[in-house]
Amino acid sequence: MLCLKTASNPEWIEVAVRHPIEILVDHAHCEKKAAAFAMSMINRYPEHTRLVRDMIDLAREEMDHFELVVNELDKRGAVLTYDGGNAYANALQRHIRTHEPVRMLDALIVGAFIEARSCERFSLLAEHAPTDEMRELYRSLLASEAGHYRAYTDIAREYFPVADVKARLEEFGAIEAEIVKGLANRPTMHG
Amino acid sequence: MLCLKTASNPEWIEVAVRHPIEILVDHAHCEKKAAAFAMSMINRYPEHTRLVRDMIDLAREEMDHFELVVNELDKRGAVLTYDGGNAYANALQRHIRTHEPVRMLDALIVGAFIEARSCERFSLLAEHAPTDEMRELYRSLLASEAGHYRAYTDIAREYFPVADVKARLEEFGAIEAEIVKGLANRPTMHG
Repeated sequence: MLCLKTASNPEWIEVAVRHPIEILVDHAHCEKKAAAFAMSMINRYPEHTRLVRDMIDLAREEMDHFELVVNELDKRGAVLTYDGGNAYANALQRHIRTHEPVRMLDALIVGAFIEARSCERFSLLAEHAPTDEMRELYRSLLASEAGHYRAYTDIAREYFPVADVKARLEEFGAIEAEIVKGLANRPTMHG
Repeated sequence: MLCLKTASNPEWIEVAVRHPIEILVDHAHCEKKAAAFAMSMINRYPEHTRLVRDMIDLAREEMDHFELVVNELDKRGAVLTYDGGNAYANALQRHIRTHEPVRMLDALIVGAFIEARSCERFSLLAEHAPTDEMRELYRSLLASEAGHYRAYTDIAREYFPVADVKARLEEFGAIEAEIVKGLANRPTMHG
C-alpha cells in the first residue's frame, strides 16, 4: 500500500479491536500531532510558499478529523486522556538528517510514511472495528490519509529532483519496515 | 477596550503604517502561534471537553486567518520570513503561575489578553493602514479577535469561580498595561 514495504502484524488489529476506546484516544492524538507537525514545517520553511499553503490545508483537515474522533469518544461517554507520545513516529523522525536541504526532504518523507501507515491501519479498522459506526468512521478517513501521503510526496517533488525523492522513499521504506516489525502490537494507532 | 487598562502608544501605529509588509509577516506568525497556543491547551487539558472543543474551533479559525494573511503577502509579492518570536506574549506568559489549577486559569487569561490587545491593534490598523485592502482586512478580522477574547474568558468562567476569574483579569490587566508601556514601538503586531 502506497510506499509501504511490509504489512502490519495481524496481531495488531486483534488487539486494536479489543480496545476501541484506547484506539480512538490515540487516534485523536495522532490527528492533533499531525496538525502540529504540519505547523512545525511552516515554522521551519516559511519562505516555501507552496509548502506553507499545503501545510495550512493539511493542519485544518487534521483538526477536522481530531474533532470527529473527539465526537466519537463523546458518543461513547469517553474523554481524551493525556497524550502518551508516539514511539513509531519518534523512531522514524530519528532518521531525519540534520542538515539542509535534505532535512526538509527527509521530514516530508517521514510525514508521507506516517500518513501511509495510518492509511493501512485505517483500512484494517474499516474492515474489523467492532461497530458499524467505527468501521464507517475509518472508511470515511481512508481517502484523506492517502491524500495526505500524496500531499507530502508532491511537495517533495516540487522542491527536490524526482530521482532523489524516489531514492529516499526507497531507503525510508526499508527503515519504516524495520520499525514496524519491532512494534509490540499495543492498542494505539501505530502500536 | 475589552479588559485592557491602557491604550497602545500612538507612535506604534505610525511605525506600523510605514512598514506594512513587516506587520503582515508578523501578523501571519501571530495567527499561527495563536493556533499553536490553542493546541498546547488541548495537550495540557485533554480531559476538559468544553475547552478541547473551543480550542479546536479557535485553532481552525486562526489557521484560516493565517491563510488570509499569507494571501495578502502573496498579492504584494512578499513571502513569509522566519518567525522572530513575540516578546510581548513571552512577557505575559512569564506571569502564568506554575501550579494547577491556577496555571490553567492564568493561561486562559493570557490567551484572552493577547486576543484583546490584537483586537485593539487591529482597530488601529482598520483605520490607519496604508491601503483600502489592508484596512478592509483588519476590519474583517476585528470581530473574530473579540470573539476569541470571549472564548477564553467564557472557558475560564466554566471551570473557575466567576469572582476568581474577575480578580485575576484585574491583576493581569495591570501586568499587561506595564508590559505595553515598555514596548519599543517596533513594526510588529505587538511591538
